[in-house]
Amino acid sequence: MNPLATVNAFMQHIESKDIDSAVALLADNVSYENMPIDPISGRDAVRQVLEGFLQPAVHVEWRVLREWEVGGTVINERLDRFQIGDGWLELPVAGFFQVEDGLITIWRDYFDMGSYMSQLSSLTS
Amino acid sequence: MNPLATVNAFMQHIESKDIDSAVALLADNVSYENMPIDPISGRDAVRQVLEGFLQPAVHVEWRVLREWEVGGTVINERLDRFQIGDGWLELPVAGFFQVEDGLITIWRDYFDMGSYMSQLSSLTS
Repeated sequence: MNPLATVNAFMQHIESKDIDSAVALLADNVSYENMPIDPISGRDAVRQVLEGFLQPAVHVEWRVLREWEVGGTVINERLDRFQIGDGWLELPVAGFFQVEDGLITIWRDYFDMGSYMSQLSSLTS
Repeated sequence: MNPLATVNAFMQHIESKDIDSAVALLADNVSYENMPIDPISGRDAVRQVLEGFLQPAVHVEWRVLREWEVGGTVINERLDRFQIGDGWLELPVAGFFQVEDGLITIWRDYFDMGSYMSQLSSLTS
């Protein structure tokens, strides 16, 4: 798979909540950098974060609005959607991925944490 | 100027707080989309926002960490820095620019509003 196909396969596994298949596309020493918070290092740590993150969602849909592949870098603008109870949480995200030998080594997401937290709070209250 | 040079010239005018030169690189009907808030439409409205945004800063430095040009699209990852009083506000930003005929028609920034507001509050209190 080329870098773009790797990232899109990763997204699809996330949408299926198939965490095993998703993390199989991450390098052992992957760095997952949600810009508002500290980076998360290593595949096992990312797995734990993904489990916590996806667990409350009945359905997950990460709409890729635009995407680019430049060398080993994949960039996408997304609307990440999570159905929680009867409502949907929607979060605009800019993602930057570095892919080497078919594995994601860096995953950097820019988003507004307040938008995420306020929606999560109202959907779970 | 190609799209990348246009965007970088725009950034440099912002750093110089030369708003006249910066907005001269925006299309009349530019859309400035800070993802956590509503889009701002038109060069005059963007000028007002930039004036409000840059006014409290003694110095402005927008460090471009990585940048890409693909067709008429320019993408950059930045650390936007504002000196306010004796301290610096630092904000990680992902920027997406559409450039047509040497003018920026879309400027979309992804960032964490809470990081901006909490630093602004502590630097101005």
